[in-house]
Amino acid sequence: MQCGSNGHYYRLCKGDIMKLYIVGFGPGNYDSMTMEACSVIERCGLVVGYTTYTDILEKYFPHKEFYSTPMKKETDRVKYALERASKGTETALICSGDSGVYGMAGLALELSADYPNAEITIVPGITAALSGGAVLGAPLTHDFAVISLSDLLTPWEKIKKRLECAAAADFVICIYNPSSKKRSDYLRKACDIMLKFKSCETICGYVKNIGRNGQKSGILTLLQLRDFHADMFTTVFVGNSDTKVINNKMVTPRGYKNV
Amino acid sequence: MQCGSNGHYYRLCKGDIMKLYIVGFGPGNYDSMTMEACSVIERCGLVVGYTTYTDILEKYFPHKEFYSTPMKKETDRVKYALERASKGTETALICSGDSGVYGMAGLALELSADYPNAEITIVPGITAALSGGAVLGAPLTHDFAVISLSDLLTPWEKIKKRLECAAAADFVICIYNPSSKKRSDYLRKACDIMLKFKSCETICGYVKNIGRNGQKSGILTLLQLRDFHADMFTTVFVGNSDTKVINNKMVTPRGYKNV
Repeated sequence: MQCGSNGHYYRLCKGDIMKLYIVGFGPGNYDSMTMEACSVIERCGLVVGYTTYTDILEKYFPHKEFYSTPMKKETDRVKYALERASKGTETALICSGDSGVYGMAGLALELSADYPNAEITIVPGITAALSGGAVLGAPLTHDFAVISLSDLLTPWEKIKKRLECAAAADFVICIYNPSSKKRSDYLRKACDIMLKFKSCETICGYVKNIGRNGQKSGILTLLQLRDFHADMFTTVFVGNSDTKVINNKMVTPRGYKNV
Repeated sequence: MQCGSNGHYYRLCKGDIMKLYIVGFGPGNYDSMTMEACSVIERCGLVVGYTTYTDILEKYFPHKEFYSTPMKKETDRVKYALERASKGTETALICSGDSGVYGMAGLALELSADYPNAEITIVPGITAALSGGAVLGAPLTHDFAVISLSDLLTPWEKIKKRLECAAAADFVICIYNPSSKKRSDYLRKACDIMLKFKSCETICGYVKNIGRNGQKSGILTLLQLRDFHADMFTTVFVGNSDTKVINNKMVTPRGYKNV
């Protein structure tokens, strides 16, 4: 299928398939990657991602070519990956956690419209709701909602409405991006919204640096969470009305009878 | 730490640690397991699970001892796993998808209260929201809610309220257990609830037998979903108001500017 060479890779001809993989590599330790994520990265000639995450993967795949851009350069990054794939390099665009959940899969599919030969494979990974949940115990055993507090791309009014509705329906709520330098009071604001519907005593948990150096976790009440300082590497879990603590673990019962 | 032998395993002494792992093995193909899930199953002397799932794993780990019970025997299964672990066998209690999301982790932690020496490790896995999402494209790129339509353990009124609130807040909604023989009209009921808040044209998707033989997926509108026949091995995705179809993929934009 490939009909010309140019250094290590080939320019594709009309009708040739170009391969781009959007790979979720999980929380950041090698063992939490799926076997598929690992083998896809091994087979690709190029790995593209946000600097923080290529730094992590370079330790595990030192022989690979990496290309990274900082935060807010998502479009440039995806375009670079598509461009290199179009020139014949099988390319892995990496995302921490899952490739879909606040990941790059959506943007890659949107931008791929300009590349009719693009064959895009989405490789899922363990998102922070699951990896953080496993550290805390079993907070997500029942219906849950995942909400990002980042208003960089979403109006705060929409985030507020989602927090209200999720709290009113007694979902377990998993909060991504609870805080940043510019949004230092957002977790407090979110707690104030949820406190209109949930008890002060609702069991909550946090996990910081999931699966990485400096992992730290804790269980606290919703009222305590209001004053908790989360950073951008923290994932927060707010229980439903049945969530409880068993042997220092956060557990939401599924409702099995006789238990 | 172990002080007596009894066949292949050992009875623990007071103060000895018993090891139970709750392992999410993903959708059911070997490649979608994490490396941790694989190595934990390899190190355990016993694998316990629901019959449908032990059948899957026996193909990949034929040398292991398996113990299975049918559906609705969850408590027996967890007690057996705890009992065998207490006798010195490192035991893996397996769940398809994630160990936490509608999985066994919660029940295991609840029942472990009777086993003060139990050291329970939760090993997360790729839940159907993620593996099915990857098949369809990128439906979960923005805030989402996961709701099970099974009213075996949850009152329908609670499920209804969650569907209403999730739809009102414009979450992407991922539906687990959309149907069963006894609940053949539940997906239709759920669609009717969501249609009060979401447009008939809302982009939806389904994936059946994710990652297994007979995998099948499709994209349809919410109105079409109302008449779709889902079975208990199907996961359903209902988009938010921005979800669209790009090259036959279901994509929820995250909101990157200039795209």
